[in-house]
Amino acid sequence: MSSSNVSPLAPKGGFPDLPVVGGVTFASAAAGVRYKGRDDVMLARLQAGTVVAGVFTTSATRAAPVLDCEAKLGGASDGPAAILVNAGNANAFTGHYGQTSVEELCKAVETVAGVATDRVFTSSTGVIGEPLPHDRIIASLEALTNSQSPDGIKDAARAIMTTDTFAKGASTVINVDGQPVTIAGIAKGSGMIAPDMATMLVYIFTDAAISFEPLQAMVRGINATSFNAITVDSDTSTSDTLLVAATGASGVEVAGIPAFRDALGEVMLSLAHQVVRDGEGATKFVSISLSGAASDDDAHRAAMAIANSPLVKTAIAGEDPNWGRIVMAIGKSGAVADRDKISIHFGDILVAEKGWVASSYREEDGASYMTRDEIEIAVDLGVGSARKTVWTCDLTKRYIEINADYRS
Amino acid sequence: MSSSNVSPLAPKGGFPDLPVVGGVTFASAAAGVRYKGRDDVMLARLQAGTVVAGVFTTSATRAAPVLDCEAKLGGASDGPAAILVNAGNANAFTGHYGQTSVEELCKAVETVAGVATDRVFTSSTGVIGEPLPHDRIIASLEALTNSQSPDGIKDAARAIMTTDTFAKGASTVINVDGQPVTIAGIAKGSGMIAPDMATMLVYIFTDAAISFEPLQAMVRGINATSFNAITVDSDTSTSDTLLVAATGASGVEVAGIPAFRDALGEVMLSLAHQVVRDGEGATKFVSISLSGAASDDDAHRAAMAIANSPLVKTAIAGEDPNWGRIVMAIGKSGAVADRDKISIHFGDILVAEKGWVASSYREEDGASYMTRDEIEIAVDLGVGSARKTVWTCDLTKRYIEINADYRS
Repeated sequence: MSSSNVSPLAPKGGFPDLPVVGGVTFASAAAGVRYKGRDDVMLARLQAGTVVAGVFTTSATRAAPVLDCEAKLGGASDGPAAILVNAGNANAFTGHYGQTSVEELCKAVETVAGVATDRVFTSSTGVIGEPLPHDRIIASLEALTNSQSPDGIKDAARAIMTTDTFAKGASTVINVDGQPVTIAGIAKGSGMIAPDMATMLVYIFTDAAISFEPLQAMVRGINATSFNAITVDSDTSTSDTLLVAATGASGVEVAGIPAFRDALGEVMLSLAHQVVRDGEGATKFVSISLSGAASDDDAHRAAMAIANSPLVKTAIAGEDPNWGRIVMAIGKSGAVADRDKISIHFGDILVAEKGWVASSYREEDGASYMTRDEIEIAVDLGVGSARKTVWTCDLTKRYIEINADYRS
Repeated sequence: MSSSNVSPLAPKGGFPDLPVVGGVTFASAAAGVRYKGRDDVMLARLQAGTVVAGVFTTSATRAAPVLDCEAKLGGASDGPAAILVNAGNANAFTGHYGQTSVEELCKAVETVAGVATDRVFTSSTGVIGEPLPHDRIIASLEALTNSQSPDGIKDAARAIMTTDTFAKGASTVINVDGQPVTIAGIAKGSGMIAPDMATMLVYIFTDAAISFEPLQAMVRGINATSFNAITVDSDTSTSDTLLVAATGASGVEVAGIPAFRDALGEVMLSLAHQVVRDGEGATKFVSISLSGAASDDDAHRAAMAIANSPLVKTAIAGEDPNWGRIVMAIGKSGAVADRDKISIHFGDILVAEKGWVASSYREEDGASYMTRDEIEIAVDLGVGSARKTVWTCDLTKRYIEINADYRS
């Protein structure tokens, strides 16, 4: 649970200066859910009319707050809304008591902050299978409500961290017909997917005006090429949650505006990359670009097979240009492949083609390339035109330490 | 590549005393394919009429010798046959040259040992993507042919090792209508699936008389619950090969004899377990019994999701009874599951049921159980009657060391 050592892949310059987003305020507090001496709960208050879209884990054992959020998505949006998040306890696999906890939290937000329960979205991240001490969170709600500030997003990003080694934020401001529209977001996750300590949570806020259906479609589309295209360890959380809240405070309607979609995509991709850069034990940031696949499914499957292969990831950790393991991962992925049509590049270096090592390839070039912090692996299957890029990190002894030693 | 440290999970008493199997002889030699100062090639000679069945990796990038064996399976079986195996080089992803190597080896066996090329089965295990120096193997064929012995199986088991820390063998003798039938087999693999050093190879010999079709059906069926039910690291090799050779020397016909199927199953399961016990870096042997699944596919999928989860495997390495991670793995597996119907046992200890930790469960009992060398995890999904047991090992820092540091 130590976060003293910041990931070597953390963005330079620390947490970015995030702009204020009209219509949303934040507060954080130390509720003592599990951690001592640090904030572990955050409340974001969203102005009346705010539209909330989201995507969630597809796990069959997803947590109570995830089920509750899913049910509330797309409801009426006239009143104010709120997002309440705690770290330290995932409220997952907690039986019917888990749902009771969510209901108690939502009722308390209604009472204390004046937000109707069907507009309160909650998330919990931390240990699975222990009852959520929701009373502690409820006890902090008055302070959270009274200390709301438009500038509180950085503290909110810190309050939701678990095994994260740095807080994650990203923003952009675009111009639509001469009027500024702002997007700012925060994320947590170190390992997308270390479910009892580090599930992935993402909250993005914008003052854009947009109704639920186009926003939800946009979020779902971008999610496929951002958060659903990253992996740290192949383990899918019970709690992954991404919420995008559009307050409308800018007065600028953005449905159908490509610049807004691009801007939202940029923020989501930046946050997704930051999650990988904080992957448990990571020392290398790896992009895998798969092209020439027979179908989109095959492109995703082959890219993820490479990104999740323990042998590929340990080779990268060892700075070993072991392209044979990439061939192995392609072979096991189930994607249509033909040995003699596969080509593999490390950065600009052609490594393999025509079913064998490339005649121009020199092992020392590959070895030198692998010493970088950021590795680009490009694979062309040569059997079609579908493509997909995914991002991952290496697999190191530190990952074992973090995950073998927790709870004890 | 060190094999100085024998796995703590190795069978007590070392390599078993394997009985002689009528109709088969062995020899091993140091061909210098990659290793120095040790045998790295073995030749088994099978008497005329021997029937050979087998199953192989389904990888789309499978190695040249695998493709060659597949093509030869089920052919005429009147003449003698041979199995030629080398360690140190997998002859995988070696373009058309790989097939040439296989053809040269088979022709040489025909010339030197008098076995027709379509009855010569070859395997290669080791590094991917480097040309097989088949001339070195051919140079050793005369010695291999002249030193054939019925007792050579133990040396053969050693000659095919790569990252294995112990040689693997198993045997049984059964009585069919008063006549003895012998089965003996050897395997290599340390990690089923560490493809550039430790692909899995299995050779089983019996003096039973049986034709190809019933033997192949039997092998395929048993394979589903033995070798296809083990995993070390989820990475599927390009070279996995299992061959079963029935020489007929006992004169006992065994098609349709349940005792023979049981005996063959026992030998195959023992060898499969030995591969897991030699899993790279393994300190725990783990069986996962999945029951109550909606379908056979679901049972396999959920059991393998648990067995392959890095978070489950690191928790076991850390002796942490972290059952929340088992719930996570079930959730991500895609199998039909209902939180409130899942139950989990560690050995005899009921850990979770009805969507939550069991009221009788005490964390200290779970923690104590996890200190064992052999861990039994039983999961009932409660939604059907399909079941599957799979075997795996823990994921330790030593796995990272072995796989991050090789080749360099």
